[in-house]
Amino acid sequence: MDNEKAVILLSGGLDSATAAAVAVRESSACSAITFRYGQRHKAEVESARKLAAFFGIATHLIIDIPIDIFQRTALIPSSGIDVPKNRELSRADAIPDTYVPARNTLFLAYALAFAESWDIRSIFIGVNALDYSGYPDCRPGYIAAFERMANLGTRAGVEGRGFSIRAPLIAMGKSDIIRLGRDLGVDYSLTLSCYDPGEDGLSCGECDSCILRRRGFIEAGVTDPTRYRK
Amino acid sequence: MDNEKAVILLSGGLDSATAAAVAVRESSACSAITFRYGQRHKAEVESARKLAAFFGIATHLIIDIPIDIFQRTALIPSSGIDVPKNRELSRADAIPDTYVPARNTLFLAYALAFAESWDIRSIFIGVNALDYSGYPDCRPGYIAAFERMANLGTRAGVEGRGFSIRAPLIAMGKSDIIRLGRDLGVDYSLTLSCYDPGEDGLSCGECDSCILRRRGFIEAGVTDPTRYRK
Repeated sequence: MDNEKAVILLSGGLDSATAAAVAVRESSACSAITFRYGQRHKAEVESARKLAAFFGIATHLIIDIPIDIFQRTALIPSSGIDVPKNRELSRADAIPDTYVPARNTLFLAYALAFAESWDIRSIFIGVNALDYSGYPDCRPGYIAAFERMANLGTRAGVEGRGFSIRAPLIAMGKSDIIRLGRDLGVDYSLTLSCYDPGEDGLSCGECDSCILRRRGFIEAGVTDPTRYRK
Repeated sequence: MDNEKAVILLSGGLDSATAAAVAVRESSACSAITFRYGQRHKAEVESARKLAAFFGIATHLIIDIPIDIFQRTALIPSSGIDVPKNRELSRADAIPDTYVPARNTLFLAYALAFAESWDIRSIFIGVNALDYSGYPDCRPGYIAAFERMANLGTRAGVEGRGFSIRAPLIAMGKSDIIRLGRDLGVDYSLTLSCYDPGEDGLSCGECDSCILRRRGFIEAGVTDPTRYRK
């Protein structure tokens, strides 16, 4: 699959930045797609812009999803659900309130349509089943089911030029992801992981995503460039 | 599944109008989603609006898809591909130029996210495998693969409140669809099937969709309210 064109779903977070580094290394040309969907942490879209520039990604689509589409999630303020803070994350948890309804299915569907439209066969996504195993749309079985559906439902798939959904981080721990990114030269100061960043641009330091990020840098022995509020 | 809430993908065409009539009959409340994606036949969006009003659908989302997402299709003028005219449609054809890359996957993904966000479990789509068997994303195996993926990748699916992708027309011929719609009181004068309608509002009469529509009304013995140019 190397040296083919690729598209990456780029959120602006640590995982998608690392997956983007892999995609850029392994493809002849890489496009990126980022979504604005009313998320609290819309500063991540700015991170995604900076990352796309950093990686030299020429085609970077930023797509707006109407607010009615994703509800019942702590990541949308109007849902009235708070972002969980200071949770114990040492074991596989139930699906957290930060789950967004069918988010990866919609994001991958966009990537699939774009890929078929522009003759791209590799779709990269930075999902990770280890640290966030509570999210059903981050698991290997789901990714395999999406790929199968994609290859049944497209002209390219039916004609034997099908799609590969590539999730290079899916089985990696956060510290291993950070070491991989460091080795690939990712500038993590451009990334934003926090689900609830302040107007001051600081990460909260208390949401699941901050906890996992901070712990990951410590375990990786890599300096954490993040400015946490707590 | 009766008397639950439903969402219908409403294009403004004959098939989705008939599927909407089924959805409205079988659900306690039905929402609808329509897409603007740069299609030549954007008049179908107006048809969708009229149909939503006709069916008393209170929540009707019209969602814009960026033009870069769907290319390589005769339905987008900038692709430079003409809509095929006066084709022989008596047998299963190869995938026609009017195929839109991964369109139903993206449309169903939107419906899935909306459904999970608003506690809806039935997603209706007016696909039909018989007359248009060239489209890979209109076949039963694809619909089943999407449903399986949806139930693996969502909280509701994992927790046993999963989704049903309902394609009530999938195995029906056009004339049977028209008879069903007539029995359900569908006003087909509100629908638009033509892939290449003129500024005058007339259907071309020569594209695949017009040919199948016209033939369907004749075979059904139902008066065709369509105004064809030829």
